[in-house]
Amino acid sequence: MSKTRLEAFSDGVIAILITIMVLELKAPDGTDLAALRPLVPTFLAYLLSFIYLGIYWNNHHHMFQATHHISGGVLWPNLHLLFWLSLVPFTTSWMGEHHQEPVPTAVYGAVLLCCAVAWSILQHCIVAVEGPHSTLATAVGKDRKAKGSLAMYIAAILLAFVRPWVAEALYAAVAMVWLVPDRRIESRLGHRANAV
Amino acid sequence: MSKTRLEAFSDGVIAILITIMVLELKAPDGTDLAALRPLVPTFLAYLLSFIYLGIYWNNHHHMFQATHHISGGVLWPNLHLLFWLSLVPFTTSWMGEHHQEPVPTAVYGAVLLCCAVAWSILQHCIVAVEGPHSTLATAVGKDRKAKGSLAMYIAAILLAFVRPWVAEALYAAVAMVWLVPDRRIESRLGHRANAV
Amino acid sequence: MSKTRLEAFSDGVIAILITIMVLELKAPDGTDLAALRPLVPTFLAYLLSFIYLGIYWNNHHHMFQATHHISGGVLWPNLHLLFWLSLVPFTTSWMGEHHQEPVPTAVYGAVLLCCAVAWSILQHCIVAVEGPHSTLATAVGKDRKAKGSLAMYIAAILLAFVRPWVAEALYAAVAMVWLVPDRRIESRLGHRANAV
Amino acid sequence: MSKTRLEAFSDGVIAILITIMVLELKAPDGTDLAALRPLVPTFLAYLLSFIYLGIYWNNHHHMFQATHHISGGVLWPNLHLLFWLSLVPFTTSWMGEHHQEPVPTAVYGAVLLCCAVAWSILQHCIVAVEGPHSTLATAVGKDRKAKGSLAMYIAAILLAFVRPWVAEALYAAVAMVWLVPDRRIESRLGHRANAV
Repeated sequence: MSKTRLEAFSDGVIAILITIMVLELKAPDGTDLAALRPLVPTFLAYLLSFIYLGIYWNNHHHMFQATHHISGGVLWPNLHLLFWLSLVPFTTSWMGEHHQEPVPTAVYGAVLLCCAVAWSILQHCIVAVEGPHSTLATAVGKDRKAKGSLAMYIAAILLAFVRPWVAEALYAAVAMVWLVPDRRIESRLGHRANAV
Repeated sequence: MSKTRLEAFSDGVIAILITIMVLELKAPDGTDLAALRPLVPTFLAYLLSFIYLGIYWNNHHHMFQATHHISGGVLWPNLHLLFWLSLVPFTTSWMGEHHQEPVPTAVYGAVLLCCAVAWSILQHCIVAVEGPHSTLATAVGKDRKAKGSLAMYIAAILLAFVRPWVAEALYAAVAMVWLVPDRRIESRLGHRANAV
Repeated sequence: MSKTRLEAFSDGVIAILITIMVLELKAPDGTDLAALRPLVPTFLAYLLSFIYLGIYWNNHHHMFQATHHISGGVLWPNLHLLFWLSLVPFTTSWMGEHHQEPVPTAVYGAVLLCCAVAWSILQHCIVAVEGPHSTLATAVGKDRKAKGSLAMYIAAILLAFVRPWVAEALYAAVAMVWLVPDRRIESRLGHRANAV
Repeated sequence: MSKTRLEAFSDGVIAILITIMVLELKAPDGTDLAALRPLVPTFLAYLLSFIYLGIYWNNHHHMFQATHHISGGVLWPNLHLLFWLSLVPFTTSWMGEHHQEPVPTAVYGAVLLCCAVAWSILQHCIVAVEGPHSTLATAVGKDRKAKGSLAMYIAAILLAFVRPWVAEALYAAVAMVWLVPDRRIESRLGHRANAV
């Protein structure tokens, strides 16, 4: 099993997803700056989802760099992650058009939650093959950041029914936490590279 | 002939196909959960087609990994397969919107049947170059799974005119059979890798 | 200058073009076979353009495989080719919807003609760097097939104003001529590989 | 950190952006040449944006070829550049439909300005890692071309409110300046290659 094609296919799907979201930003009929105002929530939802997909791409990149053995059993967990990511443009579009409504805001979070769970499954499958003393396993550790994110998504989904903007602020907060690439893996890889 | 570009191009086309299907899931005008209900059949059709394209990508991956010699004669059988796969978003969209109607359901199966035939042609062309004692030829063997799938598709197409949902259940059943990656090739590759 | 990224970018653009054309095949509102009938010309135009883009991809693949030196001067001729290819979905859509009309049929041919001219320019630039005794230069030779195609396109564009279907038959005929991958380059590469 | 995946992902996003813009060129309802006339401004805006995205791809290609060390800190500046590039199809569509209006013309320039700033940030981050005596740092030098472009964009944005066509001519002029690939980097790479 080569990881090159797996990476290339995942890159392709994420690149397409991150790009087709912009098709939702339709050129307005008006020609003054006021014509852009109704697009602001859609634009902000696009920006948030762009960051989320960027985070997933970055972490996917880091995780597979720390991966040495790929078994056929990784293909479907990877496609499973791509499936949930593929729903992000849909939820972005819905929340962008109705950002003050509870259900679109909660559904946006629910898809993020599914993405995060799919990520954990994929990571678990890879760590299981790599072994408990591998670079990746030690870098991931107890994975408090991932567990904290899951809790934040669940809180945001519930809060969406009370104050949608609080939920949206929570989504942005989780994105900020992850914006920093996973230094744990990178620093371990650095150590290992020195050792080699 | 390098197989890198053939793989990269196929990855690109399949990544785009698997992703543009999601454009059919348009954000509803309503903002409650009931607004999502009319999207359920479209969503399920998307899920099924996502799995099918995922299966084709996985098997394409496995087949080309077991392939050592690529002749120019493989390019067109590969494009022929991509052509039929490219019609999957169209039939997914039609069946998703009219899942209780015979013709859209039968046409969905007819395109799957053409994809399967195109796959068999491609496999045949590659095996012909690799030779009867190659890893791929012995891994494929009599290829009962492929022949069984063809029979299932034909049965489903006919049943679509009587009970569309039975046809849809058959499509899902074939997908389940293939969901497991082709262990035959992988295990043979493993043996060979050990031998080398 | 590495040719890997040039190939990867060109593969990406051609893969996207060959795939987004299928978005023009919109699921019909009706649910019987008759509902598909109005789509037949669009489908045939899609099939023809799919073959043309497949031919360009195949030949691009073969040409760059026979190329050893890439200078920065090849980037823009390559983008120039991709620009004209990018107009194929537009002309396919217009001709598909109005296949009995002179202007859409002629414009379809005009874009094919521009693609062919752009191809010749790109080939010329590469041969100029490779040198007159290179594999590619000897394989291309006097390039009668390309010159004949240009003449055929011009004839078809003129005939489109008299009998659109004759022009369309000519487009299909040129595609048939090119469907065979460029054996000249492949056979030369084979000789060279043996020599090495 | 391997630069392969970073390049592949960027290639994917730019290939998609350069291609989806053509979806704005919708097949007209009419079937004579006059039916194409309303598309001319959209077509010219597409051509201009195609050249801009081609320039960014070319320069991205050259810059990463001159880059030897990639740190995780380059991922986000690269995604930041891709974000602004992803807004080009939107502004192209708006300006194409309203090419005599100040605001769409100014907004087109504002996004180009943001792309140019994002490019400078990315270049700065890479040069910081490569070091002041690296191939890239000496090739970039004082980067007068980039600074001149920023000034031109700002001038064009202001002029858009007086004479939109002057602004558009300035955008085209900047594109012409950049159309030539960055010979500085290429020539330095050549020297270095000789030295090695």
